[in-house]
Amino acid sequence: MKIAIIGTGNMGTGFAKSLADTKHQVFIGSRNIEKAKGIAQSLGNLKGGSYKDAAEFADVIILAVPWHAEKDLVRNLGDVSGKILVDICNPLTKDFSGLDVGFTTSAAEEIAKLASGAKVVKAFNTIFAEVLQQSLKFEEGKANVFICGDDRGAKEKVSQLVKDIGYEPVDCGALSAARCVEPLGMLNINLGYMQKMGTNIAFRLMRK
Amino acid sequence: MKIAIIGTGNMGTGFAKSLADTKHQVFIGSRNIEKAKGIAQSLGNLKGGSYKDAAEFADVIILAVPWHAEKDLVRNLGDVSGKILVDICNPLTKDFSGLDVGFTTSAAEEIAKLASGAKVVKAFNTIFAEVLQQSLKFEEGKANVFICGDDRGAKEKVSQLVKDIGYEPVDCGALSAARCVEPLGMLNINLGYMQKMGTNIAFRLMRK
Repeated sequence: MKIAIIGTGNMGTGFAKSLADTKHQVFIGSRNIEKAKGIAQSLGNLKGGSYKDAAEFADVIILAVPWHAEKDLVRNLGDVSGKILVDICNPLTKDFSGLDVGFTTSAAEEIAKLASGAKVVKAFNTIFAEVLQQSLKFEEGKANVFICGDDRGAKEKVSQLVKDIGYEPVDCGALSAARCVEPLGMLNINLGYMQKMGTNIAFRLMRK
Repeated sequence: MKIAIIGTGNMGTGFAKSLADTKHQVFIGSRNIEKAKGIAQSLGNLKGGSYKDAAEFADVIILAVPWHAEKDLVRNLGDVSGKILVDICNPLTKDFSGLDVGFTTSAAEEIAKLASGAKVVKAFNTIFAEVLQQSLKFEEGKANVFICGDDRGAKEKVSQLVKDIGYEPVDCGALSAARCVEPLGMLNINLGYMQKMGTNIAFRLMRK
């Protein structure tokens, strides 16, 4: 494949390193042409230049720029008809507190509004009933239960419960983190049913 | 702990089975009191009855009902002040096509609107730059790259690229699935930075 990497930040240089050893033809492009050429030279086996030249060269264009720069970049990329654009961004708000797109509230927060005085904890929404009922074990290790809540003590109790029935809790922070964890549940359902993987699946956060 | 399970569906009975063997006191409650009592009797070591009795009994209440029933349930649960409510739902729309709450669009779809004629693929947004740059390996296996797109051929090409640099692709379906995958990226960032796990983490979908 002819691949363009647009951007010479952490992700762009990461792709450059990862792709330098493959059989693909790689062109790294940037607003800063000299920087792109320098990276190309230091790694060997790839070209460096402007982002427009990179995009023109390639069939597959990896957009390795932050969300707030990505829209302008795409507007100025020239004709990309028929090309593959790989969007790798996380559309964070400028203060990194959340997502700029498609990110408003969560079921957990709506429930908390109704349950006056109660300590609402989000948990178990990424565990399929079939996994729970069979106490299914996976080769890689325990399935994670992602936990969100505004009360530390409540989260600790629920985490203990999670461990007691064979899962590994991951503290995701405040109840508003359910805005991320509920879509993960949706992804799980999507993979199990629409993508036909079946329900004997579960997520694990790997740590090193 | 004194635990209530509200609901005798797949998740509720799964919790009942999982908790029956623990040292916790468990009360399963339902609109269908006889069903709840039957489950309790068949498993032993737990009580069954109405959802109000279950909620009153417990310190920790697991709401094992679907989203569309959960709000009414909470409104009718009685005084839950000081109690821990565990919300396990995925707030699906009635046709299961998406989330009812906090689910509107995605950066990937916005980019596709701008990149006329191009084949936009979402990928790599859950891979930290530090993981990419170090080609970090995990004990459990390869990190997943979650891939969304509306063009099958484009997704196949990007999947090949993902394999070529040492990751395992997971086809998440249409580009609109980025509405789930982008929040997963946000969760990753949240865990890495706000929850202070560091950036040497990655998700893996375990299969059985």
